[in-house]
Amino acid sequence: MTAEPNEIKLKAIGTVRSEIKEPSRQKHQDIGSEIIIDSDLTEALDNIDEFSHIIILWWIHKSRRPAPMKVHPRGNPENKLMGVFATRSPDRPNPIGKTTVRLLERRGNVLKVRGLDAIDGTPVLDIKPYIPGYDSADNATAPPWMVKE
Amino acid sequence: MTAEPNEIKLKAIGTVRSEIKEPSRQKHQDIGSEIIIDSDLTEALDNIDEFSHIIILWWIHKSRRPAPMKVHPRGNPENKLMGVFATRSPDRPNPIGKTTVRLLERRGNVLKVRGLDAIDGTPVLDIKPYIPGYDSADNATAPPWMVKE
Repeated sequence: MTAEPNEIKLKAIGTVRSEIKEPSRQKHQDIGSEIIIDSDLTEALDNIDEFSHIIILWWIHKSRRPAPMKVHPRGNPENKLMGVFATRSPDRPNPIGKTTVRLLERRGNVLKVRGLDAIDGTPVLDIKPYIPGYDSADNATAPPWMVKE
Repeated sequence: MTAEPNEIKLKAIGTVRSEIKEPSRQKHQDIGSEIIIDSDLTEALDNIDEFSHIIILWWIHKSRRPAPMKVHPRGNPENKLMGVFATRSPDRPNPIGKTTVRLLERRGNVLKVRGLDAIDGTPVLDIKPYIPGYDSADNATAPPWMVKE
């Protein structure tokens, strides 16, 4: 055992199945994908279909390492250089993706969702129900060009 | 090297400073706390104060292991037993907390925030800007008793 003192270890709970095979910046709102949860965790999905939306935390396994301190948002050099924590860049110190998706169907250990911007083969770290009022922020402001139309 | 094949390793990027010293279910919306980011990552916070709200991903270091498959939400036995992925229980396979907070001030490597339900000493994994329309879901539904008043 030679783990670093502050090291935190995770293990994927499942995998994304998507038609998107490589990282891209294409619009993902309408993309359907499946999340295959490890079959020994099937029971932990019970009741999830009582929610219309769920939050997926996933491991951005194709991110650049080491992560840069600053990036041009969306990889567009016309966007000003910003601290990486002020962006949603996949290249970040702990590359964890967080996406709110529409839950279409749960069947056993498979979740069908819409709007997941994670590529095929992405390891999934956690599934959480989306709770209006807790996950949403009223009157939140952001630079206008970063807000989804 | 004897790491398990699917093991994912993270390292905290900072630590929470809060007056809440032990896990509790008290209301946290009005609680002020500080996030101290490792000083070698200070630059990665630049521009974050262009956002009113940020998302904190944190390590729930006091969660129960191994995680149960089902829990009574909010630890209340009057709430029906639900699959852990259909709840926000801290006891989950990968205990990552996700909270949307109000960003009050950024000074160097310190973020002052309001609404963080993580106790003093909590390791922080990631900071993301909250983007209205991407992080929020219109018309989301959830069991009424789970929605924040």
